This record gives sequence, C-alpha cells and structure tokens, in this order.
Amino acid sequence: MSFDRLIEKIKAAGNPTVAGLDPRLEYIPEYIKAPVFEKMGGTMGAAAECIWQFNRQLIDALYDVVPAVKPQCAYYEMYGWQGMHTLRQTIDYAKSKGMFVITDGKRNDIGATMTAYAAAHLGKTEINGERLSAFDADALTVNAYLGTDGIKPLLDVCRDEDKGIFVLVKTSNRSSGELQDLVLGTGERVYEKMAALCSEWGMELPGKYRYSGVGAVVGATYPEQLKRIREISPDMFLLIPGYGAQGGGAQGLGAAFDSDGLGAIVNSSRAIMCAYKKEEDCPEEDFAGAARREAIRMKEDICSVIG
Amino acid sequence: MSFDRLIEKIKAAGNPTVAGLDPRLEYIPEYIKAPVFEKMGGTMGAAAECIWQFNRQLIDALYDVVPAVKPQCAYYEMYGWQGMHTLRQTIDYAKSKGMFVITDGKRNDIGATMTAYAAAHLGKTEINGERLSAFDADALTVNAYLGTDGIKPLLDVCRDEDKGIFVLVKTSNRSSGELQDLVLGTGERVYEKMAALCSEWGMELPGKYRYSGVGAVVGATYPEQLKRIREISPDMFLLIPGYGAQGGGAQGLGAAFDSDGLGAIVNSSRAIMCAYKKEEDCPEEDFAGAARREAIRMKEDICSVIG
Repeated sequence: MSFDRLIEKIKAAGNPTVAGLDPRLEYIPEYIKAPVFEKMGGTMGAAAECIWQFNRQLIDALYDVVPAVKPQCAYYEMYGWQGMHTLRQTIDYAKSKGMFVITDGKRNDIGATMTAYAAAHLGKTEINGERLSAFDADALTVNAYLGTDGIKPLLDVCRDEDKGIFVLVKTSNRSSGELQDLVLGTGERVYEKMAALCSEWGMELPGKYRYSGVGAVVGATYPEQLKRIREISPDMFLLIPGYGAQGGGAQGLGAAFDSDGLGAIVNSSRAIMCAYKKEEDCPEEDFAGAARREAIRMKEDICSVIG
Repeated sequence: MSFDRLIEKIKAAGNPTVAGLDPRLEYIPEYIKAPVFEKMGGTMGAAAECIWQFNRQLIDALYDVVPAVKPQCAYYEMYGWQGMHTLRQTIDYAKSKGMFVITDGKRNDIGATMTAYAAAHLGKTEINGERLSAFDADALTVNAYLGTDGIKPLLDVCRDEDKGIFVLVKTSNRSSGELQDLVLGTGERVYEKMAALCSEWGMELPGKYRYSGVGAVVGATYPEQLKRIREISPDMFLLIPGYGAQGGGAQGLGAAFDSDGLGAIVNSSRAIMCAYKKEEDCPEEDFAGAARREAIRMKEDICSVIG
C-alpha cells in the first residue's frame, strides 16, 4: 500500500522530512512576480503563474534531498480555479521528479460525497468512458469527525490505486485541546480514541514495512501526546507538522520513529520556502538555494534524534 | 451579519429550504451530455461544461421558489480545476438570481491556512494591490475538530464581508456517533460540547434576528439530538441535511424552528436534482421542471411542521 512507496523514498533519501508548499504571494521573490504582474496585471491568473514558477524552482532545488512535498490546498483555492490549475501542475511536476506528494486538504464528508473527494485527490473520475485523474496526489490528509462513513470510501480508493491517507489525530495548534484533549467517560481522551479508530481503519490497508496506509497527523508541538499515540498505534505512520516555524523542536520527536528510523515524516513549510528571508545576505534570486540549505539543516536536525 | 440576509430571503420565499447542487455526471440528462461529449470528448472540460448547463437550468427553475443553493465542493473538485471553474460560475449565477449560496466544503485548518480558506470561499485575495474574490459564497460549511484556532480567521472575514459559517455538530450519517456521541467525563456528549463552542463563537457575530453568523450542521436523521442542540443553543441557525434521500422525514424537524418559523434551513440535493428520474413519464428534457415540482412539494412538507 501507499506508505510502502513513501517509506522507500524516505530510505533512499535518508531523510524523513517533507517540504510544505504553502505558497502565499508574500513569500515569492519580487524578481519572479514583477514581470508576471507587468504582463498579466493583478489577476488570479498572474498569481497562479507566480506560484507555479516558485514551486517549480523549489522542487528543482529539493527533489534529490527531500523525498516528499505537501501542497496545502487552501493556498491554491484562494487563487481560484487558476490556483487549482497550479496545484495540479505542481503535483505532476513533483511526481515527475520522483517525489511523493501529500495533498493537505483535510477533506471530510460522507458516502458518495467522500467518494467524490477520494476520486478528486487520489483516484480517477469517469467521464464518458474515460478514466481521468483530477489532482492525483499519492496521499491526502483527512478529518474524521464524521466517523467511519467518511473514511471507508477513501480506503477503497487507496487499495485500488496504491494511495494513503493521514487522519487528523492531534493537531499542532494551541487550541487543539479544546476538543481533542477532552476526557471521555471511559478515561480515554478524544485524540486517543481517534488514534484507535485509525488503527482499526488501517487494518484494511496493510503495508510490507509494518505501517498501514492509514496514517495520522500529530503536531510536533505536543511531544507527550505524540508518545501516547505511538503507544496506542505502533503501526500507524505519522505526519508531523509544527516543526520549526510553529515552535516544535526535534528533541521530542524521537518517540515517533522505530529502531530503523522509520515511522514518521516531519513537515516544514515556511522555514523552507522563506529561508532566503532569514539567511544573512541571501539575494532573493537564490531563494531555492536557501530552501535547499534549510532542508539539509532540517534533515540533519531530525536525523540526530532518530535511531 | 450574514444569516440576516439568509433569513430575509427565507421570509420572502416563505420557504426554509435549500437545494443542494451535487452534480454527478450520472444525474445529468443525456440530451445535455451527448452534444458536449460529441464536441469535446470525454474530458474534464466537457464534464465541467455539462455540469454548468445542468446547474444553470436548475437555478433558472428554482430561484423564485427556493431561497438558497448549496453546491458541494467535492463534486466540482472531482472534475479538476475545470470543475472548480464551474463552481465559480454556478455561485455567480445563483447570486445574480438573488439566491443565497452556501458552499459545502467542510473546510478546516489553523491560523494562516484557515485565513486562506476564508479568503478563498468567503472573502477576498489580495494580488498586486487588487482585491479579488476566488469563489465568493455567502456562507461556508466548516469542521471544527481543530478548535478555536480553526474558526477565528473565519469570524474576522464573516464580520468584514457580511458572511456566515455552518460548523459540523451532529452529522446525518449512520456512523456519526462514533465520535460525536461519545460521552465525556463531564456527562456531556462531544456534539453537545461542539454546539456550546459554536454558541461561544457566535457571540462575535450577532445578527438582528436573534441568530448569529455561526450556524451548525445537524442531520435530519437525528431528531432527538437536534432537539438537544436547540436547547443548548437557541440562537444558532441550523443547516439540516439528510432530509429525503438520506431517510430523514419532516416530522422530527419542528424543534429546529422558532415560533416565527425561522431558525433552520433544510437541504435536499438528490431528490431535487434527480426528481425527473422518479416522476412517472417525465421526459429528461423536463428535468428542471421536475426539480421545481419536487422543491415545491418539499416546501409544503417542511412548512407543515413549522409554526
């Protein structure tokens, strides 16, 4: 299943990290934006073109160091259908460079509607006898507040298309505890129950390296909860946001990894995309080089805490 | 705030229902599809064109009877960026006919990313000094598993742009209880806690007709829970899916409405879109007429249970 492919890419790169592609226009160097706005004006199409050029150069600089990218849907949707076109271009280009693509969409719905989301982001859409792919990532983040009815349609597509999902279990934000940390009558917390549900769903997508095709999103900002989730679900692959810009350090992440150094992938978005703004005397034309240097620094930092 | 506008449209139509636009290709009559596929082949662009023609005719047949439409994002995303273009066309057209548009996206994320979703679906995106709208609905459905951090950015946009949100509280599907009905240590259920959080968030968006700009999604299939939610949150406007095709009847819905017949809007998607397939001897060319007849039947059914 899907995470076998991800695990093999992580092993080949010796790097369990993923670069988030959350391309706000403010992050993009002027030398890219100026000629595009000059030619196309302040339009959705111009924004989409700027983002595409930015992403492409980032991917070119990162693909032999970082095994995966995680485009965040919101930053494409905010530029309309033109932005969604750039999302598809970005996914295709990253895959052509051998990267594993996790679309961060946190999609959720039930029955036929979840089947439509599964088709949109992981599977195929049938049109007059043709089977076409809409966005075609390797994995999708999802929100399971609706229960099994919202997950089952994804499992079917993951099985058929060799894809995977990451379910939100314990998110990296400050207020994540408002709901996720509530204590149930059984003594269990809501996020613990969610982890247990994910393990059950994962039994339908076994992988060859211990980990199923149902992973979990667990914030780097909550190392204690991460440890607890690892105890509940030893076979669940973890996607870990919140490292770097959001304040999570590498120290607490050791528990996420097994003795082979596998079991999790740590995301960094802004710190990589905007590395050129933080590096001393870095010309904006070298933004992709700065992103690569930050990605290598991060790799070393994460690798220092694993087996 | 936003639901004031919705409430005024409901009052004017005397009809507290919304037509879901979840346009699967299978629902679209052959006489629309055949010439499009003939000309454009089995492509995403062809599918997007078919959906656009279907939606436009539905809107033409419904706008003077039904005050609102609810396009479901998944059915546009599955047709790629071309489908997202149709989503925008559909929203614009429905608004031009005076309808209130609820985009059913169940979006969720935190901080800057939720701000991006809010810009995408309700607000404006700034591009080189221009402020443009990406999808520009009147309201958006959202999932609050991430807590206040995922809701706050929406409240700001709703205040500035006179828009609203509907938060998932108790969904209509069979397995919704797996998480939503869990009993907390306090004796409260998870969905009750969610309703209470929504009421708190709603205090930031007061409306002139009692109801705030933070509504809740509550399935017609759970009349007992609907009653309970109405007790917890008397000032929360309810979006009620699950009527009709999903098995929920009108009988249990009385509790959702106040003595003026306000407080909720009941959705029907498939039963309206596919009415022509159920009506005896209805030629497919009259699909929009059948949709209108079903919408009127539904209006009468719902109105029979309210004050």
